[in-house]
Amino acid sequence: MPRSSDARQRMIESAAVLFRERGVHGTSFSDVLDHSGAPRGSIYHHFHGGKTQLAQAATEWAGEYILASTIAALAEDDPIAAIDAFRRWWTKTLRSSDYAAGCVIVAATLEGERDPRVRAAAADAFTKWENALAGALRRRGLPVARARSIATLLIAAIEGAVLLCRARRTIQPLDRVAKELQQTVAAALDHSSEQR
Amino acid sequence: MPRSSDARQRMIESAAVLFRERGVHGTSFSDVLDHSGAPRGSIYHHFHGGKTQLAQAATEWAGEYILASTIAALAEDDPIAAIDAFRRWWTKTLRSSDYAAGCVIVAATLEGERDPRVRAAAADAFTKWENALAGALRRRGLPVARARSIATLLIAAIEGAVLLCRARRTIQPLDRVAKELQQTVAAALDHSSEQR
Repeated sequence: MPRSSDARQRMIESAAVLFRERGVHGTSFSDVLDHSGAPRGSIYHHFHGGKTQLAQAATEWAGEYILASTIAALAEDDPIAAIDAFRRWWTKTLRSSDYAAGCVIVAATLEGERDPRVRAAAADAFTKWENALAGALRRRGLPVARARSIATLLIAAIEGAVLLCRARRTIQPLDRVAKELQQTVAAALDHSSEQR
Repeated sequence: MPRSSDARQRMIESAAVLFRERGVHGTSFSDVLDHSGAPRGSIYHHFHGGKTQLAQAATEWAGEYILASTIAALAEDDPIAAIDAFRRWWTKTLRSSDYAAGCVIVAATLEGERDPRVRAAAADAFTKWENALAGALRRRGLPVARARSIATLLIAAIEGAVLLCRARRTIQPLDRVAKELQQTVAAALDHSSEQR
């Protein structure tokens, strides 16, 4: 993830990096200050709403960042190539963190009972990714309901595969899941083009 | 989940129930004592190894519990019916907890950086579930590699779908994902029977 020089943005990005390894509950304001190098006064200056506001901002930022990557991966409306782009991105993220780093949006989801506003930001991110994926599948000729259902499957299966990789400390679950998802999408697109 | 009268087992089951809502890090020994009604002395009597030992025991217990349910759901070697059994079980669990309860094994995975022994118990549970599912797919005629790859997909996609349900507070992602997974398994079994 790119770094910014602005203290508020540095804190948001540090929060996102820490959330994906330690979870929202496991990350304190002090951790974020240490990681970002932002001055202590930045907290109250930029985040009047305390940790909830920082966690919401970090979730929104990570959600938009991944949405932009998803839209870029779908530039040619090729969902099979996009699955490969997700696989490569997660392989790099998991390996470079020694399987510590997961998804910020999953971390935000799990904060839900403590802080429903952070969970709502996570739900919003998932919905935007799903819309982007379903849109691409729709443009490739899938019926609306199937496009949406495959989009949900892609997000669920990749998020789940990342968890399996973190548990087992190997990239194998992601490789298997990406291949299965590519077959599912290819079969759906074939079936849809036969019907036209 | 059934309750036992023994203090050690009550603490294990309470830990599992709390982990799936609050995570391992978000659950204290006091929370477990309060929930289980076990006397304070039970901690040191039953869990010399402290919270790590309790978290490992709860992860192992939940892993075995879900494994037994998986084996029961696969009694007829019918993986499509088993997917429906998982869907029904998660629908009940999510709705009855107002979308607060997730998977104990996911909670244990996320504790990985703080406590690698708890993560190892999670990895072990995932492997056992995968072996059970792959075994059933194998007995229905799928080649070894495909059986394993679909087993990984089933676990990843259902775990991911549960996260999406918790974020959005609706059962819709799980319904969509279960239907897609059933189609994937049906197509793989058809393809394999055509080749024989």
